[in-house]
Amino acid sequence: MRVVRSIEQLREALEYMRQGGHAPIGFVPTMGYLHEGHASLLRRAGEMSNTVVMSIFVNPLQFGPNEDYDSYPRDEERDLELAEREGVDIVFIPSVEEMYPQPTRTTVSVSELTTRLCGASRPGHFNGVTTVVNKLFNIVQPHYAFFGLKDAQQVAVLRRMVSDLNMNVEIVPCPIVREGDGLALSSRNVFLSPEERSQALVLSRSLREARQSIEEGKARTVAEVRELLTSVISSSPLAVIDYAEILTFPNLEGLENEVLLTDVDGEIIIALAVKFGRTRLIDNNVFIPKEVAAVV
Amino acid sequence: MRVVRSIEQLREALEYMRQGGHAPIGFVPTMGYLHEGHASLLRRAGEMSNTVVMSIFVNPLQFGPNEDYDSYPRDEERDLELAEREGVDIVFIPSVEEMYPQPTRTTVSVSELTTRLCGASRPGHFNGVTTVVNKLFNIVQPHYAFFGLKDAQQVAVLRRMVSDLNMNVEIVPCPIVREGDGLALSSRNVFLSPEERSQALVLSRSLREARQSIEEGKARTVAEVRELLTSVISSSPLAVIDYAEILTFPNLEGLENEVLLTDVDGEIIIALAVKFGRTRLIDNNVFIPKEVAAVV
Repeated sequence: MRVVRSIEQLREALEYMRQGGHAPIGFVPTMGYLHEGHASLLRRAGEMSNTVVMSIFVNPLQFGPNEDYDSYPRDEERDLELAEREGVDIVFIPSVEEMYPQPTRTTVSVSELTTRLCGASRPGHFNGVTTVVNKLFNIVQPHYAFFGLKDAQQVAVLRRMVSDLNMNVEIVPCPIVREGDGLALSSRNVFLSPEERSQALVLSRSLREARQSIEEGKARTVAEVRELLTSVISSSPLAVIDYAEILTFPNLEGLENEVLLTDVDGEIIIALAVKFGRTRLIDNNVFIPKEVAAVV
Repeated sequence: MRVVRSIEQLREALEYMRQGGHAPIGFVPTMGYLHEGHASLLRRAGEMSNTVVMSIFVNPLQFGPNEDYDSYPRDEERDLELAEREGVDIVFIPSVEEMYPQPTRTTVSVSELTTRLCGASRPGHFNGVTTVVNKLFNIVQPHYAFFGLKDAQQVAVLRRMVSDLNMNVEIVPCPIVREGDGLALSSRNVFLSPEERSQALVLSRSLREARQSIEEGKARTVAEVRELLTSVISSSPLAVIDYAEILTFPNLEGLENEVLLTDVDGEIIIALAVKFGRTRLIDNNVFIPKEVAAVV
């Protein structure tokens, strides 16, 4: 496994791989502090590619002024061990100066898809994501890029960017990886106190209950599902709901309160963001209601 | 010479060229209605590349609602003859539907550099340019892309986009091509009446006189150069000045009125936009004042 820190070195290493017939190239961009969710992306990349590139870069552009850029957890040594174990070929760890040698005046932005959910709670966040991912795609020029569905909005936004800009890469969404008790893996889980950690289970529990109620035909409208979500989450005294929404997927269009889920064509997403103390957790479930809902 | 109209066909043709060792690939994006200025770009591309790709696409995204998108001149047959004559290998002529199968939600924008000159007169214009050129670069993946310096601001903006987004292409700026009497070639010159055509010479004449006055140490400050420009242009009764500005190049930063040009480090641009009837013409001159100005 090679560790490179400069764009030039990375381009040389990749050119060598391409010339040597080691395509396709699979790319897993991360912010480090890797967990089993990242490991699952790396394994999927290994199945689909002959060269796996992983980047570790905590991108200042996608953090708001009052967000956790400075305190975002970092552990390069442990990350490199995990990458080695998972068969990564090249790890790219650029500094902020390497990625932004001068303040960027160029922004890649996706409209509409970014106005709701995390886009509403974190203004500017998705412009930071699309801009840095665009840069990374141009540097790595991968055939496939792997992203976890925990950040489902990110997946939807990046797919739209790739399609709108005719980028020559396929976004491969990978399933959410959970702890045994249901908590979705996140590098930010490390910030939770034991009490918060235990109460944070309301995210996955509310999603499971919502899904089950839809399957059983008990929750039938958008409003009924939203009510169920908020009532389950509110049972946890430490939980502060940022959003609990039901939208179409991947276009992330709103649905009126009285809409019957069985009338919606295609996929929907039930998406949550909940704060525990200073830690903000997200989780979601994407499915086709017409396929799962009981017809009463 | 091959003419292709679909992105898929173009990608296949280019893959074939790349596999066959016909790199580097040179790309000349145009809006068609080709003239000797375009021909000079194609010749430069031919000198530097083994495969020359030219696109013809009048991009609706870069025209304002009251601009000349509908009346922009088009003549595909004549364009193909010129391309053939200049040794183009592949001409890409996509429809609007091919380039925008759905309304684009993704925008590539460059800030600051786009606030002045044509960016101020044509709001949204440069977002349309950077977005479509980004798409075309992703489709063609050229080693070099050739642009005329008549659109000097466009060159500056695209260079910044390529550098900020780590795009793997080199922008090659090419000199302005002029008629024998000095008028800069433009597809829009065809709109000028004989009287307007004759008066339009004030653009190049005012640039020549400004340059000469700087060389001779007669015009020494930004204000003096601007005065000279407006006085020459105003001698033409049909001319309506949109802008006549002196800025740093390529960062396009403003200069105070009293600044001595000999105090400016690096290049400056003298840039003009002047309307004759409904036709808006631009012209400019880029140079290093420290190198040309007389030290008095």
